[in-house]
Amino acid sequence: MKFIRFGEPGAEKPGVIDADGAIRDLWGLVADIDGATLSRGADLGLGSLDLSALPVVDPATRIGPCVGGVSKFVCIGLNYSDHAAETGAAVPPEPVVFLKATSAICGPNDAIERPRDSTRLDWEVELGLVIGKKAKYVSEAEAMDHLFGYCVINDVSERAFQMDRHGTWDKGKGCDTFGPIGPWLVTRDEIADPCALSMWLEVNGRRFQNGSTATMIYKPAFLIAYVSRFMTLMPGDIISTGTPPGVGMGQKPPVWLQPGDVVELGIEGLGRQKQTVVQG
Amino acid sequence: MKFIRFGEPGAEKPGVIDADGAIRDLWGLVADIDGATLSRGADLGLGSLDLSALPVVDPATRIGPCVGGVSKFVCIGLNYSDHAAETGAAVPPEPVVFLKATSAICGPNDAIERPRDSTRLDWEVELGLVIGKKAKYVSEAEAMDHLFGYCVINDVSERAFQMDRHGTWDKGKGCDTFGPIGPWLVTRDEIADPCALSMWLEVNGRRFQNGSTATMIYKPAFLIAYVSRFMTLMPGDIISTGTPPGVGMGQKPPVWLQPGDVVELGIEGLGRQKQTVVQG
Repeated sequence: MKFIRFGEPGAEKPGVIDADGAIRDLWGLVADIDGATLSRGADLGLGSLDLSALPVVDPATRIGPCVGGVSKFVCIGLNYSDHAAETGAAVPPEPVVFLKATSAICGPNDAIERPRDSTRLDWEVELGLVIGKKAKYVSEAEAMDHLFGYCVINDVSERAFQMDRHGTWDKGKGCDTFGPIGPWLVTRDEIADPCALSMWLEVNGRRFQNGSTATMIYKPAFLIAYVSRFMTLMPGDIISTGTPPGVGMGQKPPVWLQPGDVVELGIEGLGRQKQTVVQG
Repeated sequence: MKFIRFGEPGAEKPGVIDADGAIRDLWGLVADIDGATLSRGADLGLGSLDLSALPVVDPATRIGPCVGGVSKFVCIGLNYSDHAAETGAAVPPEPVVFLKATSAICGPNDAIERPRDSTRLDWEVELGLVIGKKAKYVSEAEAMDHLFGYCVINDVSERAFQMDRHGTWDKGKGCDTFGPIGPWLVTRDEIADPCALSMWLEVNGRRFQNGSTATMIYKPAFLIAYVSRFMTLMPGDIISTGTPPGVGMGQKPPVWLQPGDVVELGIEGLGRQKQTVVQG
């Protein structure tokens, strides 16, 4: 199934995508698409619900982030060998982990706000893992049982804040609107192999990223198990698994996002996003 | 006023400290000591409540983290010049910012869980700033209007995870129980000068940290304004402002926490914490 959240920022309602791609309203059946709801299982406790009996939502409605109330937004850095190469970094012997502020989360088509003082605003299409069941010290073999599903993420980054502003990467990763997630939260059963998904990103119609999750270094099951050794993952928590080559920083010369730029991205089976850059 | 949360983990109730130091039950008057409640103002919207009319809470009751539903736990690194020196790091030309996973938050007297594979478990007594009003691009002059109050924080750290495990500091800062906060959330008006508070930390009765917020490099108002340029601070969010000298890493030879060790710490006017280390 594909779940979605729609409506005004901060007041999103839960929905589900029907066989024709329309949004059906789940309001009244579940409170939200959030950790509490996800912990009910892949069908959210709805059983064999007849989607065609649910109200259709106006397709012009704003799409919100596909998960609400996220408590942790964990990111993996340098997890594609060819992306590590383009940034000049060595492939790490174990996953690079950092945290994105949850206040960065926004809808898949909301504007990206270029922060004041930004000079090197960049993009990263990433496969997101959404946790369905609490995970602490889980083994790689059991890790996927703790996964609810997948989503598209743009791990928007300000490279000067990230690397030149004296601190950890977090300063350049967690600015407001730096975490568009969605449009859909796609249940695990719909994706036969999360390591065989094509993924792409375009800026103003020019394709910059054209990769596949096949070239991921550390795979989803390993990552869930690994992160769960450092912090307990809760239902609704997100792990963003890194980006393939083609980020702005990797261009010669580098390309940075400017106000008015339009970013489009997508992952096979998980939908697509479209953001316009605005000055903050 | 001094607010507190008490009861079982995950089911804490709100309370307030009366003139005799007893906990009075606020249940039914406010839902929780959390962002939504803090945004009502320093008196939580309670007006001139007669504390003596409220039920007294059994002093043996567990004390929970002093703020619930924290969305961001922002930390400042190397913010005391003498602590920077003991770690061998230069004083940074602007604040070092990192994020602690909110799942690390626990009560002030809960056990500290030594993670599996931990070899270099360390302590850091810190002054915590708790946000009361949303802050985005606020000036230093207006920053304190966005502060609700203060609390004691032990920024527990695993130095090997933090510095030798290939990634940002986050891996060694956000483990479960690495964020005891409280006992009290003390309103801003009770602390005449947050930069003149003595602070201390002992392990098994031996004093290791014996400092004062007077030697902070970047002060609270500056920090709130600074962080608000990188992410919107929400009511209930925490900024932990760094630690004075005397961490385990700074001893010659270094001292690391072991199961059974007892850590006690406190800050003038903000109360004290006591944790026992257990193996996770």
